[in-house]
Amino acid sequence: MKLDLGDVFDASEIWSARNRIKQYIHRTPLFHSDSLSKLTGSKIYVKPECWQKCGCFKVRGAISHVSSLTEEEKNKGLVTASSGNHALAVAYASTLFGKPPTRIYVPENADPSKVKKILQWGPELVYHGDSFFEAYTEARRYTEENDATFVHSHGDPKVIAGQGTIGLEVMEDLPDVDAIIVPIGGGGLISGISVAAKTISDTVRIVGVEPSAAPGAYTSLRDGVAHEEIEIKESIADGLLGGFGSLPFQICSKTVDETHLVEDSEIIEAMRAFQRGEQLMVEAASSVGLAALMTEKVQARGEKVVLVVTSRNIDAAKYNQLIG
Amino acid sequence: MKLDLGDVFDASEIWSARNRIKQYIHRTPLFHSDSLSKLTGSKIYVKPECWQKCGCFKVRGAISHVSSLTEEEKNKGLVTASSGNHALAVAYASTLFGKPPTRIYVPENADPSKVKKILQWGPELVYHGDSFFEAYTEARRYTEENDATFVHSHGDPKVIAGQGTIGLEVMEDLPDVDAIIVPIGGGGLISGISVAAKTISDTVRIVGVEPSAAPGAYTSLRDGVAHEEIEIKESIADGLLGGFGSLPFQICSKTVDETHLVEDSEIIEAMRAFQRGEQLMVEAASSVGLAALMTEKVQARGEKVVLVVTSRNIDAAKYNQLIG
Repeated sequence: MKLDLGDVFDASEIWSARNRIKQYIHRTPLFHSDSLSKLTGSKIYVKPECWQKCGCFKVRGAISHVSSLTEEEKNKGLVTASSGNHALAVAYASTLFGKPPTRIYVPENADPSKVKKILQWGPELVYHGDSFFEAYTEARRYTEENDATFVHSHGDPKVIAGQGTIGLEVMEDLPDVDAIIVPIGGGGLISGISVAAKTISDTVRIVGVEPSAAPGAYTSLRDGVAHEEIEIKESIADGLLGGFGSLPFQICSKTVDETHLVEDSEIIEAMRAFQRGEQLMVEAASSVGLAALMTEKVQARGEKVVLVVTSRNIDAAKYNQLIG
Repeated sequence: MKLDLGDVFDASEIWSARNRIKQYIHRTPLFHSDSLSKLTGSKIYVKPECWQKCGCFKVRGAISHVSSLTEEEKNKGLVTASSGNHALAVAYASTLFGKPPTRIYVPENADPSKVKKILQWGPELVYHGDSFFEAYTEARRYTEENDATFVHSHGDPKVIAGQGTIGLEVMEDLPDVDAIIVPIGGGGLISGISVAAKTISDTVRIVGVEPSAAPGAYTSLRDGVAHEEIEIKESIADGLLGGFGSLPFQICSKTVDETHLVEDSEIIEAMRAFQRGEQLMVEAASSVGLAALMTEKVQARGEKVVLVVTSRNIDAAKYNQLIG
């Protein structure tokens, strides 16, 4: 059955985004993991966006957005808010398109190793608040007040289309995939991937996973309303600690088949499995999907399952302590 | 000045190899590392062959060789000897070309995590001897006795040509590179890369690095004779513990500008730097080049330097212990 999103989102935006971004990003491979297959009982394929430019898939969405801005929009200056990876991606993307002034809001507790990577691209960095939502609110206020151009981390169609190019690549490499498991933060990634995959395949299942510390998507899809601001607990999956965006909610209501929550202890086991099985050093947020599979919250025995591994941007000392 | 290798090796073999292998391998990116540049004072670019299929560059050479065999040669059965990565690559390559019987000799002390990866492709595995050379000698004896087809890890022109495709990709991505730093084991990798790079560039410097525990290339190039069998000490860089091949010696005598030796403690520091700076979990053998740069054995301040990172195939427990 053809995916029908009405006026919510135009799937062809994903193909346009690919055309705009392809010269700037890595076309990451999809590889079969023997060790993770044995561990889970599924046929596991890894989409290693941890090998993407800037170490994270977020460059896809950021470049998709920035490349579509007019000179006037860029000259007003770019503003964004992020827990780290999207900020890094926007800072990088701005250097590819004329290096407009770029102002980045991160929460006070942002991962120092991410902040270091952001700063190499020369943006103005502003620490604000204790959470993504607080940094975001201040960034929006500044944008309004200064008539600047906001680059949203997950609520913008161009950003969602950019992340969706991952879905196109997965479908090209494994057209008969049974399930794609995607980490959920604000929801931009799973929105894009699910639209791409379900535009192409009638049978693929889209599974979202988030830390129980920030169950924005889980509660939104359960309650039938977008919980953009939610109560957030502590979690090692700092990249996923936010509410669920309004546009992602409208999309995912039609495209996401199931969502699951995982605990930090389960995420750490999955990080260890990625290291042991595939020598992948990944951040906690990247491991929620494997965690849901290892704990059999996701049922996919015997199925062809793609795990989207989103980022390798984690502080080495913190990583070694977590898995040690 | 045009590189002249006389009858020793035909550089065009590298272009032919690329044509044969390109559909089977990942075209890995070349990425600039801000953190490693700051650390070393050079402009560091990483060629991450640790992201290659099977986790190691060795698939390039193995596929190059196996893809050029006749049906008759394949039907006689493939034999090889390796400390691990080449064996993995040959086992994998054999599955791409009709799955001929494949018999693999590894030394008794081969890394268990590598052996596990080898076995997933279904070859016959034979443990023999305490070193690569002992496993190699037995594998050659078996090959002679059974009229089988030997796939050499570094002494075969087709294998060297396959590894040389890395050099082509580096030159495409960074034509004005000043120096390429390459780990040396048997010498196949540096032979191929140096011929590719020096066929294209008149100015690029080729720097080889090996562990002081197995100074085969260093002593061979110093003495003007190939030391194929040398006394080997213990080292964490197990992938590089062998003598220097005869064909690599003939090639590298004309193409390699300098060689350096590094100690295990220096290699560990480099492994830590890869992890801290780029979240790359790599094996010890992959880190000798960065170690030589960090210790200023290689002088390259301000220069554009490519580090070829050869493999991520290391046991996680061993890795965590080394860097912990």
